[in-house]
Amino acid sequence: MDNTNVKTASPEGSRSTCPIANLLDIVGDKWTLLVVRDLLLLSKRRYGEFQNSPEAIPTNILADRLKRLEAAGFVKKEFYQDNPPRAEYFLTRKGADLEPVLKAMGKWGKQYIPGVVLPETFLSPEIRD
Amino acid sequence: MDNTNVKTASPEGSRSTCPIANLLDIVGDKWTLLVVRDLLLLSKRRYGEFQNSPEAIPTNILADRLKRLEAAGFVKKEFYQDNPPRAEYFLTRKGADLEPVLKAMGKWGKQYIPGVVLPETFLSPEIRD
Repeated sequence: MDNTNVKTASPEGSRSTCPIANLLDIVGDKWTLLVVRDLLLLSKRRYGEFQNSPEAIPTNILADRLKRLEAAGFVKKEFYQDNPPRAEYFLTRKGADLEPVLKAMGKWGKQYIPGVVLPETFLSPEIRD
Repeated sequence: MDNTNVKTASPEGSRSTCPIANLLDIVGDKWTLLVVRDLLLLSKRRYGEFQNSPEAIPTNILADRLKRLEAAGFVKKEFYQDNPPRAEYFLTRKGADLEPVLKAMGKWGKQYIPGVVLPETFLSPEIRD
């Protein structure tokens, strides 16, 4: 992935043609993949459910990350109530296909970080496309 | 990973007992995993080699991320010259075991991000423990 080796143009607005760098452009922070985890492995859908996760994501960060995940096509927002408006969030296939990334991270963490706990059961998310 | 479900204490200084959250506490940003990628898949070892990657990591961020990776036990620094001091960086087994995470990210990116390119050959890194 040296400039000298890769002559292809980078995808628009991205740092390079590296697929890892391009994914990190979207999910490279401490919070985004935790929202994906909640959607994917814990079947959470609602704002309050994400906030209830033990990491206590700040509300402004949660709102920002859900918007970014929606803009990137990882998540779909559906209103289940009009007045006041209330929405649920669902992974798209593209978002749900991050599962091997999250599972690999979980496996690494379980091996190397003392005291971590995997949930006893993973739930299957509903996918929207 | 709800507070209500997990009674275990979190690893010291971390946000929760979730292995994914704990790994993100170390590598959750846009740059750290690119340094790991350079070490793991492209056999880079030296400061200038990391800087030559197409993402053009800023020098202060590179210095900070190498320090953090060393402090977290992912990387070992070895001096190959005394005057002036020049160092090379090597992954530990712990750091090299992020390979399935990076490979899963690369596979996802190759599937979903148009225009990305995987390097033709992955090189095997030397591991230090």
